[in-house]
Amino acid sequence: MLTVAAAIEKLVATVQPFGLTDITLEDSLGLVLGEDVYSPEDIPPFDKSLMDGYAVRSRDVSSGFASLRVTEIITAGRVPMKNVGAGEAAQIMTGAPMPGGADVVVKIEETSRDGDQVLIKTVPLRVGTNTILRGTSASAGDRVLRIGDVLSAPRIGALAELGYAVVPARRRPNVAVLATGDELVPIEEKPGPAQIRNSNASMLAAQIEIAGGIPVRLGIARDDRDELRLKIQQGLQCDILVLSGGVSAGTLDLVPITLAEMGVTEIFHKVDMKPGKPIWFGKGGRNGLTDHGDCSQCYVFGLPGNPVSSLVCCELFVRTAIRRLMGLVPVMVPPKLAKLEHDYSTRPDRPTYHPARLTQRAGSLAVTLVPWHGSSDLCGTVAANGMAYLSGEARQYRAGDELETFGW
Amino acid sequence: MLTVAAAIEKLVATVQPFGLTDITLEDSLGLVLGEDVYSPEDIPPFDKSLMDGYAVRSRDVSSGFASLRVTEIITAGRVPMKNVGAGEAAQIMTGAPMPGGADVVVKIEETSRDGDQVLIKTVPLRVGTNTILRGTSASAGDRVLRIGDVLSAPRIGALAELGYAVVPARRRPNVAVLATGDELVPIEEKPGPAQIRNSNASMLAAQIEIAGGIPVRLGIARDDRDELRLKIQQGLQCDILVLSGGVSAGTLDLVPITLAEMGVTEIFHKVDMKPGKPIWFGKGGRNGLTDHGDCSQCYVFGLPGNPVSSLVCCELFVRTAIRRLMGLVPVMVPPKLAKLEHDYSTRPDRPTYHPARLTQRAGSLAVTLVPWHGSSDLCGTVAANGMAYLSGEARQYRAGDELETFGW
Repeated sequence: MLTVAAAIEKLVATVQPFGLTDITLEDSLGLVLGEDVYSPEDIPPFDKSLMDGYAVRSRDVSSGFASLRVTEIITAGRVPMKNVGAGEAAQIMTGAPMPGGADVVVKIEETSRDGDQVLIKTVPLRVGTNTILRGTSASAGDRVLRIGDVLSAPRIGALAELGYAVVPARRRPNVAVLATGDELVPIEEKPGPAQIRNSNASMLAAQIEIAGGIPVRLGIARDDRDELRLKIQQGLQCDILVLSGGVSAGTLDLVPITLAEMGVTEIFHKVDMKPGKPIWFGKGGRNGLTDHGDCSQCYVFGLPGNPVSSLVCCELFVRTAIRRLMGLVPVMVPPKLAKLEHDYSTRPDRPTYHPARLTQRAGSLAVTLVPWHGSSDLCGTVAANGMAYLSGEARQYRAGDELETFGW
Repeated sequence: MLTVAAAIEKLVATVQPFGLTDITLEDSLGLVLGEDVYSPEDIPPFDKSLMDGYAVRSRDVSSGFASLRVTEIITAGRVPMKNVGAGEAAQIMTGAPMPGGADVVVKIEETSRDGDQVLIKTVPLRVGTNTILRGTSASAGDRVLRIGDVLSAPRIGALAELGYAVVPARRRPNVAVLATGDELVPIEEKPGPAQIRNSNASMLAAQIEIAGGIPVRLGIARDDRDELRLKIQQGLQCDILVLSGGVSAGTLDLVPITLAEMGVTEIFHKVDMKPGKPIWFGKGGRNGLTDHGDCSQCYVFGLPGNPVSSLVCCELFVRTAIRRLMGLVPVMVPPKLAKLEHDYSTRPDRPTYHPARLTQRAGSLAVTLVPWHGSSDLCGTVAANGMAYLSGEARQYRAGDELETFGW
């Protein structure tokens, strides 16, 4: 059976990053920039005051004291009308252009005004004090951002400053979520005697959102070929389709059969892990280019129906596919090393992702495994905020041992 | 002048958390749960198979080998029709209810079928193998989630399982963003000779989104009282109004005056920090209860117009106000200790938040201060992914010293 690492490798070889599209700047948070960005002009575009005060010639205030004649008021957004000559000053606001002749700004708190005279009472100021010169942040032609930069708030601000109302980037994928199974009822319904509520769809949609995708909720499909075909058809219009349930070995596990009929090719089925072994992954189901022009096929995940299996598979595989489409690096969220807070012994088993409580201690991360009754026990995971990796060998872990962990 | 800590204390004393409202489960990711949640029923609600296979009596397969008569097929969602007697088996699917009499499930891979007989070839199985008993995850009346729990994906899944289509929680605040100043033009316009593009609004909206708020973009207000009043009036309809520009000491710094005229009371003005000293904070401007019935006033921030000042003030103060309204704990995102990767000497100054590059090394966080030209240098911050706190004393920091850092 495939290891998790081998399955991830196949997934990454299969899923190709989106092409670049123009994304409105206000929708670009968290996206990966697709091109180097050069400043089209000097930033700031003019010598500028950083304070409210008086623009003066530094040699006029070399003693710290002076009485100067005020020649104009320069507000932000206005071009200075006059040069500042010897013995002169221009009142100036934060962000306003420096007038010719002046090379420092004296803060308003260090002045007093008397008619058209201003009395300066400051310390000797270095040339340039309280100003920023044209091109200090960036000169025209400087590279400000690099291809691959993830768009954070300050980077979005810098792009706005440079005039980028749209940015070349990889968009977020649409990810359809479809729960399958005759045992499922919607959350708001009272389950019958052999039924349970559809918990996976809400959980998977939240995971997809955290991963960077846009969840598209398709509800529940009964274990009925026609209903399944119809819902799958809808899901294949998205970039990724995530099904839960119907992929293990039972006679009603219709998902792989139905997907095959619809032109979705299997890439892998079953991975050596716990929970989540029956996971199915494939691609296809669409012909030719889509509206977006950047993805001719849908990537399809069949996740096992037990909720903790779905949870873990979504974290490891669906999240990685979303990150791959978006061009995020590293493609898989890397594990964090954490110190186990208690002893723990394991029997031989498949490699296991165990619900765990991660706590930031001074300078290091600590992890406690939470009591857990296996793949169907979602309520047992609510005390967890992540999972810890146990290799599958029989082992006596000791408090203080380091485990690989993943936060939710 | 107020310290940052004292300003935060005033802010937290002023801003009161929202009351609880019913939030649709699909909108609840990242919100704080407002009540303890008890399971209304046993979870799972019936003894259940965890595998596709055959439900049998463990004593019939005590040797690992048996030939049993198949009496029915139990699919998920269906109630078993018969009890399993001695020498009998029921074919069963993952998630289906266990039939009476059977106490283990043999995986389908460990069986072969011959007409109505199934040949079992397994190892001796403990009672309960491949099943989960009613109430194992939670018994009716058990507390599953606690007041104050932040709603993660698995917790949302558990709430769905328990039948919570809506949850009692504190909603996300609407946060209006208004940039002020005659020097500003929209991103898509070419700035005139003394003008710059409005970079703050895009940046602040992104920060507000990360903090958990819903940004409401109000564009630019000129330095004109009527225009400012009109835009502020719109902004006061939101839970928080964030203005940038117009709060320092210039004659055109109309923001505090206009806010006072509109019934917004100052809570503090100016904080001993760099950048961001001129920050203004107040509340008011609305009469009586709002539509939401849970907030009779708007909290108003006047942030300094220099972009890095706006950035830092939003991280420290606006973010804290958003978290306070949502009931998030701790109310302020706590700093992370990081090891400085180089020597750095400081002169006496205000306590400073310096743009910095944070890197996760094996087991610890590392920080490098990025070259930076002060509060107007947003392009200089694009190499940063956070900020480091420098206390303001003249000090020779050494590589390996620990600094408090905040990620963006």
